[in-house]
Amino acid sequence: MSIIITAFERSPDGGAGLARDTRVRWALEEVGQPYEVRLVSFRAMKEPAHLALHPFGQIPTYEEGDLALFETGAVIFHIAERHAGLLPENANARARAITWMFAALNTVEPPILELATARLLESDKPWSKQRLPLVENRVRDRLKQLSARLGGADWLDGGFSAGDLLMASVLLRLKSSGILDEYPNLAAYVARSEARPAYKRAFAAQLAINAGKAPAD
Amino acid sequence: MSIIITAFERSPDGGAGLARDTRVRWALEEVGQPYEVRLVSFRAMKEPAHLALHPFGQIPTYEEGDLALFETGAVIFHIAERHAGLLPENANARARAITWMFAALNTVEPPILELATARLLESDKPWSKQRLPLVENRVRDRLKQLSARLGGADWLDGGFSAGDLLMASVLLRLKSSGILDEYPNLAAYVARSEARPAYKRAFAAQLAINAGKAPAD
Repeated sequence: MSIIITAFERSPDGGAGLARDTRVRWALEEVGQPYEVRLVSFRAMKEPAHLALHPFGQIPTYEEGDLALFETGAVIFHIAERHAGLLPENANARARAITWMFAALNTVEPPILELATARLLESDKPWSKQRLPLVENRVRDRLKQLSARLGGADWLDGGFSAGDLLMASVLLRLKSSGILDEYPNLAAYVARSEARPAYKRAFAAQLAINAGKAPAD
Repeated sequence: MSIIITAFERSPDGGAGLARDTRVRWALEEVGQPYEVRLVSFRAMKEPAHLALHPFGQIPTYEEGDLALFETGAVIFHIAERHAGLLPENANARARAITWMFAALNTVEPPILELATARLLESDKPWSKQRLPLVENRVRDRLKQLSARLGGADWLDGGFSAGDLLMASVLLRLKSSGILDEYPNLAAYVARSEARPAYKRAFAAQLAINAGKAPAD
């Protein structure tokens, strides 16, 4: 059964790899599953056909036969459950890897997205300059704790897992901010993730779509 | 093997049920599993013994024999995987229920938490009054989409699932704001969730700990 995912026709980041289809591509590359991509315009994302697939009008979606999923975490878990390479076989180790998937998306990503919102959507507001350090410090609070837990290890709990895939994807959003470099072990963790052949293939595939196109508004 | 969870010694909400141990209690009540509770003070939450269990220094944690988990979504998934009642048996329906778990925590909860942050932590800032409507409208954007998807159904996808448990828990945070009442089907969905005997038992159990104590700062 062929796998079809959706991605931006033109990514807001111009191909920097921060659109969430990159996470799903990366997972599929890690487990060696081929996939097709259907590109969706910003207008089409808000139309009934796409909303039937994704109630929040976002990308990516995931279709496989008569199964249709949205929400990157759920898609990556679905892939990880069906193909070896993203979750350990030992039951306790598997539960801990799943914990890191949720931690990436529910504990570490929210303050990072809040920072992105403050920078992108509220940069023209009168409070922007005064409020930004507050939001940055909320990100630092989380990174400090994550850095302490990671310590000198390569990955969060034993070998590379779907938890690392999501955590590294979340942290990648900070690369341009300089904040990540304040935590050298986290910066190295992200670099280690980006060096994975599967990540490189995923990154190149999304770049190929966006190369030469102006970033979307 | 007995299950031990952690909860606030004194909840910041004074027992309104918004602390995240309520979600785990609710899941355990739905599947009929007994559990013990270890109360943790704010000071103890930031000390090494607790940080070893929860790297971000929060509650709840979950211990069962030699397994230790944190992150509410992961704990509830672990419970749902091992006991009938929170995830459908059909593989596709199960994957969709898991999708709603992630959607609750990664798509719907972040703007709701941002609103809580704006109200609680930034209420004394000069921008507070001007910025609040902006943040509220981000919550409305999500609720509008969720309301459209739920329509006239009782639950998000067929029978009650762990996806509904997490979505209702996330929406409960909005009850005091009045925003939820702008979407009558979502308000009814939350009321339907609160009426479940398992939720009532979970709520009562956390209230019993906090009753008579002044809310924590």
